[in-house]
Amino acid sequence: MANIKPSLAKGTRDFSPREMEKRNYIFNTLRTVFKKFGYNEIQTPSFENLSTLTGKYGEEGDKLIFKILNSGDYLAKAPAAFLSEKLSNKLLSHISEKALRYDLTVPFARYVVMHQHEIVLPFKRFQIQPVWRADRPQRGRYREFYQCDVDVVGSSSLLNEAEFILIYREALAALGLNDFTIKINNRKVLSGIAEVIGKPELIVDMTVAIDKLDKIGLDGVNSELLGRGFTETDLDLLKPIILLDGSNDEKLMSLKEILSASSIGLQGVAEIEEVFRYLKDFGVERLLDNSIEVDITLARGLNYYTGCIFEVKTNEVSMGSIGGGGRYDDLTGMFGLKGLTGVGISFGADRIYDVLEELELFPASSASSTQVLITNFGEETYAHALPLLFNLRKAGVAAELYPASTKLKKQMGYADGKQIPYVLLVGEEEMASGAYSLKDMASGEQQKISYEELIAFLTKNTFSC
Amino acid sequence: MANIKPSLAKGTRDFSPREMEKRNYIFNTLRTVFKKFGYNEIQTPSFENLSTLTGKYGEEGDKLIFKILNSGDYLAKAPAAFLSEKLSNKLLSHISEKALRYDLTVPFARYVVMHQHEIVLPFKRFQIQPVWRADRPQRGRYREFYQCDVDVVGSSSLLNEAEFILIYREALAALGLNDFTIKINNRKVLSGIAEVIGKPELIVDMTVAIDKLDKIGLDGVNSELLGRGFTETDLDLLKPIILLDGSNDEKLMSLKEILSASSIGLQGVAEIEEVFRYLKDFGVERLLDNSIEVDITLARGLNYYTGCIFEVKTNEVSMGSIGGGGRYDDLTGMFGLKGLTGVGISFGADRIYDVLEELELFPASSASSTQVLITNFGEETYAHALPLLFNLRKAGVAAELYPASTKLKKQMGYADGKQIPYVLLVGEEEMASGAYSLKDMASGEQQKISYEELIAFLTKNTFSC
Repeated sequence: MANIKPSLAKGTRDFSPREMEKRNYIFNTLRTVFKKFGYNEIQTPSFENLSTLTGKYGEEGDKLIFKILNSGDYLAKAPAAFLSEKLSNKLLSHISEKALRYDLTVPFARYVVMHQHEIVLPFKRFQIQPVWRADRPQRGRYREFYQCDVDVVGSSSLLNEAEFILIYREALAALGLNDFTIKINNRKVLSGIAEVIGKPELIVDMTVAIDKLDKIGLDGVNSELLGRGFTETDLDLLKPIILLDGSNDEKLMSLKEILSASSIGLQGVAEIEEVFRYLKDFGVERLLDNSIEVDITLARGLNYYTGCIFEVKTNEVSMGSIGGGGRYDDLTGMFGLKGLTGVGISFGADRIYDVLEELELFPASSASSTQVLITNFGEETYAHALPLLFNLRKAGVAAELYPASTKLKKQMGYADGKQIPYVLLVGEEEMASGAYSLKDMASGEQQKISYEELIAFLTKNTFSC
Repeated sequence: MANIKPSLAKGTRDFSPREMEKRNYIFNTLRTVFKKFGYNEIQTPSFENLSTLTGKYGEEGDKLIFKILNSGDYLAKAPAAFLSEKLSNKLLSHISEKALRYDLTVPFARYVVMHQHEIVLPFKRFQIQPVWRADRPQRGRYREFYQCDVDVVGSSSLLNEAEFILIYREALAALGLNDFTIKINNRKVLSGIAEVIGKPELIVDMTVAIDKLDKIGLDGVNSELLGRGFTETDLDLLKPIILLDGSNDEKLMSLKEILSASSIGLQGVAEIEEVFRYLKDFGVERLLDNSIEVDITLARGLNYYTGCIFEVKTNEVSMGSIGGGGRYDDLTGMFGLKGLTGVGISFGADRIYDVLEELELFPASSASSTQVLITNFGEETYAHALPLLFNLRKAGVAAELYPASTKLKKQMGYADGKQIPYVLLVGEEEMASGAYSLKDMASGEQQKISYEELIAFLTKNTFSC
C-alpha cells in the first residue's frame, strides 16, 4: 500500500455530519411535499450504456459526459489505426461502453420506455440523485451534484402545471421561504412572437437573445438580435413586447393584441390563462397576485420545452434561480416511444442550501443527533451507567456514553465539538444519591435531576428518534 | 438523436416506486437506530482519484474497480509504445485518473485523514451509499449496490463492540427480525490457535480453510489444510478446536485451556469476555444467551481485522449473512495517519430487503404514498374539487385529482394500479348534497361522508405526510 497524502478528485466534495443533516433536511422536506401531491420516488442506475446518453445533450454536452473505461484488457479489440494515430474520439466507443448519468431526464425517459407496460399513466415520479459532469470546476460548480426532478408523463392537462406552482409554493414555505417569484412563460407565446415579426425560423436566436435581458439590458439584446439576423424594423416590433409591463392580466391582455394574428401565440396565452384559472379555483389568489409573474423573456432550454415554462427565484437573497421546468411534448421519442407528453420541474438543491444557510433557516436540531452524553468515570460505574444509557435509548433519546474514563475536560470537549446539548454526570456521588447532574452545554447551567425527571426532560426538550 | 431500443447497463437496476419505498423504509429505520447510538451520517464523492483506491483491495480488487476515462483528448499524452503494443495495464494511468468508489471503507479512511483537524475523536460515522464493482453480474450480485457502514475510529474501548451488538439487535428488531444469530470471534484467538499449533506463519491459510467449515465440512477443511502446509499432527491438534462445542461460557473456558500457552490467544478470549460483561451490564442477558454465538471458524477478511469479528444471520429465512464487521487497528495508515484504531459493522441492504420481502415484513403503507384519489368529472366541478383537494393536502393527506375527465373505469384503474386506498367521487350530486361518496378500494365498500368526516377519517385511517 502506497503511503500517499490523499486528496479529493477535482470538483468533488465530502459531506460532513452537519452538512448531511442539512441536506437531508432539504431532501426530506421536498420528498414529503412531492408525496403529498401524489408523486412517487424512483431511482435509476448511476451509469447507463453510453449509447443511451450520447447525442441527447448536444455536442458540448457529449463532451461533458464522464465515460467509464471497459474492464479487463480494454485495448484488445481496439482498431490499431485509432491507437497509432491517437484518435481519441474514434477510439472512444471501442474502449468505453458505459457512462455516468449526466442528468435525470434522459434516464427517466429510458425508464419510462423500458417500464411502459407496468406503469400506470399518468406516471408521476420524483427523483433525487447525483449527476456528473466533466465541467471545469469553479465556485459553486461541482463535477458531482444532486438533481431533484419532479415530472408527470402521459397527461396533457394544465392542472399539472397549476399543481407544480402549488408544489413550489408548499415546498418553499416548508423550508421557511415565503418571499419568492415564480416566472411563467409559454413556448407557444415565443413562437407567436417570432411569427408576428415574420421571422418564425429565427425563434431560437430570438429567445436566446431576449433571455439575456436581465444580464445585458435592452441595448445588449438588440445588438445580439442584429447579429443573429434581425433587422432594425424587427427590433422596433420586438421592443414593446420585450419591455411588456404591468400586472399579469395587463400583460396577457397586451399579448392577445400583439399575437392576434398568430393562432399558436394565442394558444400560448390561453394556456397561461388556464393555469391561472385553476390557481384561482384552488383558492390561492394571493399567490397569483404577489408571487407569479408572466415573463416573456423567460426561455430555459427552449429546444426542449413546448408549452409552459417556469423559473423560481427567492427574493430574500441575491441568488440565481432555485428551480425551473416546463412542458415537453416528446420525452421518450428518442427511445422510440412517440407522443408521450410530460411536464416537470426541478429544485436546485445546492442553491437552496446556500439560501437557507444565509437566512439561517436550518432547524437547530439539524446540528447534532446525539442529545445527551453520559460522562465516563470508569468501569466501576458501568453497572449503573450502562442500564441508564440503555433506558434513555429505549425512551427514544439519542444518547452516548463517552467510551473511556479520560479527563472530564476531554469528555466535555467531545460533547462540545459534536454539539451535544446535554451532558449527564454519573459518578459515585450521583450513583449513591440517585440524583444526576445534568449540564446544559449552551447555557452552562447544571441541575440535579432524578432518573424519572431526566427521561421526562429529555424526551420533551430535545429532538428524539 | 438516434432512435434506439434502450436497455440497462449490465448488472444495474432501476428502482420503481414500490421498491424505493421499501428501500427507504430499510435505510430510514437503520438511520434512526444509528443516530440513537450517537452515529452521524457522512457522504463521500462517487469517484476518487485512482491513486486513492489502487492497491487497497488486492490485485483482484484492483481489476474490479471501474475506471473513468479522462475527458477531452485523452490519448494526447499517452506513450505511443503502450498504444501500439496495446498494453492496457500500462496505459491505464495515462488515460484515467479517477475511479468509482469500490467500498465505503477506503473513502472513509481518506475522509478521516483529510478532515483530521476538524473531527472530534472518537469519530462515530455511518454512511449509506452505492458502490460499484466490475464483477460478472449474476443472480443477487449487481455492479451497483448500496453499502451501509457504521464505524467509530479513535476509541479502543470494547464498549464500542458491545454497542454494535446492541445496534444489530435494535435495528433488526425495528425491521421485525427478532430471531437472529450474531456470531463473534476474535482475530487474536485465531493467532493464538496458529501459535499453539506451532504454525503462526500459516494463520491466513488456517483461517481461510476453517472459515469454510459450514460449506465443505471437516473433511473438506482438513484436506484444504493439508494442501496449505499443515501436517496430520496439526490436524489432530486443530480438530477439537474447530469442533468446539457447548455454551459460549463453555467454549470460552475450553479456549482458555487450549490457548494457555499463548498470551495473544488469551487476550482474544479476554476481549470477548469483556464484551459479554458489558452486555450483561446493559441488561441484555437474554440476547447473550439466545442470539450470540462464539464461533472460532469465523474469519471475514482476516487481513484486515485485528480484534473482535462479527457476523449476523437471520434464522427465519435461509440466506447468507446480513451483516458483519470487526475491529481493525490501522484504518488510516494507508494514507499516512498511523495508529488510529477503529471498529465497525455493515448491513447488507439487498439481503435484508429479500428477507423482509419473503417474511412479508414491509409495512403496508410502503406500497403507496397517495391516500385518496378524487375523481374528475370535468372542469365544471373544479371550483368545488380543487379547494377540496387543497384542503385535504393542507390537513396532511396525500391526495390527487385525476387530471382528466375520462371514463370512471379508467380513473379507478389508475387508483388501482397505484394502490391508492381510497377514491372520492365528486360529481354534481355530491357537490349539491355536500355528501361525498368514498370508496374503499380494498373492500370495494362505498360510504357517504361529509367534508368534516372525510378529513377526520383520512387523517386517522391513513398514513399522512
